[in-house]
Amino acid sequence: MTALEKLENKNDEGKFICVGLDTDIKKIPVHLKNIPNNIFEFNKQIIENTIDKAAAYKLNLAFYECLGLEGLKQLEKTLEIIPTDILTIGDAKRGDIGNTSKMYAKSIFEYFKFDSITLHPYMGYDSVSPFLEYTDKLNFILVLTSNKGAEDFEKIELKNGNRLYQLIIEKIKEWCNNNCGIVFGATQTKELEENIKNFGQLPVLVPGIGAQGGNLTDLINIFSKRDKMKLLINVSRSIIYKDNSENFAKAAKNELAELNKTVSKILFK
Amino acid sequence: MTALEKLENKNDEGKFICVGLDTDIKKIPVHLKNIPNNIFEFNKQIIENTIDKAAAYKLNLAFYECLGLEGLKQLEKTLEIIPTDILTIGDAKRGDIGNTSKMYAKSIFEYFKFDSITLHPYMGYDSVSPFLEYTDKLNFILVLTSNKGAEDFEKIELKNGNRLYQLIIEKIKEWCNNNCGIVFGATQTKELEENIKNFGQLPVLVPGIGAQGGNLTDLINIFSKRDKMKLLINVSRSIIYKDNSENFAKAAKNELAELNKTVSKILFK
Repeated sequence: MTALEKLENKNDEGKFICVGLDTDIKKIPVHLKNIPNNIFEFNKQIIENTIDKAAAYKLNLAFYECLGLEGLKQLEKTLEIIPTDILTIGDAKRGDIGNTSKMYAKSIFEYFKFDSITLHPYMGYDSVSPFLEYTDKLNFILVLTSNKGAEDFEKIELKNGNRLYQLIIEKIKEWCNNNCGIVFGATQTKELEENIKNFGQLPVLVPGIGAQGGNLTDLINIFSKRDKMKLLINVSRSIIYKDNSENFAKAAKNELAELNKTVSKILFK
Repeated sequence: MTALEKLENKNDEGKFICVGLDTDIKKIPVHLKNIPNNIFEFNKQIIENTIDKAAAYKLNLAFYECLGLEGLKQLEKTLEIIPTDILTIGDAKRGDIGNTSKMYAKSIFEYFKFDSITLHPYMGYDSVSPFLEYTDKLNFILVLTSNKGAEDFEKIELKNGNRLYQLIIEKIKEWCNNNCGIVFGATQTKELEENIKNFGQLPVLVPGIGAQGGNLTDLINIFSKRDKMKLLINVSRSIIYKDNSENFAKAAKNELAELNKTVSKILFK
């Protein structure tokens, strides 16, 4: 099954919420802090309790890399327990000259065996193309992000009156053949509404719901007008840290169920 | 000693060439391929033979990450043998929302203990600011890269007539206080000549000499007009793979000596 098929299958089942495993050793419940493989044990319980309701899992590499080799060992162990029919996203935001991007692609797609990755577009086509050679994977390229800094460059006006992020959407459509997606922040509601018709067939990974302030109802209303939604809404902190007690995994399960219910209500009203 | 002081000290000694340890298991000499810690053993011999002539060492994380945990173990071992008076660059091209960038900074500056990092500017100020909190480190932010894809977005014309990379230079000068540098590709000679007066006091990391086609003489001529050169010219493949026999480290040493001689001839003609 290709990465795109995995995404579409879950969407067909009415699942759009991607669980973000930004697992921070400082934020996991006290009873897990001092056990071996604490990050993995936390992830394992979250996965076991969310697997039937999640559309995908996004693992933010920074949260594992900050622990060095030990963190990456736990990332590996986590990936091993995620069933192969559900999309895994290596949220790595990579991008470099061709011979280096080739090595990053090897790391994310061959070593860790992620189904997909997030990429920086800044260095242009040849910085992205080594990832595009993996035809069964998905490459989510940054377009418009959810943070305040999106104003600095992403939204800058170009000579032809378009914004930089709009040019990037156009280029991605030229470059890709069924193995690209885009990252578009949930806090950018106005821009999302104005631009969604230009996304073509591109699947969209939307961060920024929850801790970052994006609104789920607005988001679903906008995407529901699309032919096929091809949507993954990432939620990290407000699911995995919903509860800080021994009950954390059940609380995550309930929170995800609530989010799914909100989505269904809007889609089938 | 701060990262900037390390760079300036080496420049004061007439050293401008940064040795890029893009160590590729497929390209190391045959006699090293099947020994334990082969990447580290290769790096060790390169370092021992270049340490008195190098201005810095740049380790490209992709080449270690593609080997997974084993590669990162060898990266760690390599960093341990580089003397603390010489700048190390973690060429990682990171950049994400604030709470994630904070974790990447932890990984590169605290876990691996690199003196400096390379960063993507695309996501704006708050994606860079967690790195800027490390006042003794250096953050080399991508401005104009040496690859063909630099045409796609980096050189795009903005509404005010400037190019995107020129706006990024201006923003970096606003954001930073003695702990930023920029990455500017050696293949972009015309743009370098036109823009160097706007770099202010920013140190510059220049990739693209050698395998990528940039010209060393042109580069030194342009930088020699600067008040303080604050320059690191990265050379990877044409030093470390100069020779593929058991003599590789001596060949690397000689190649670096030749490059230094070329630089001296221009500076002291």
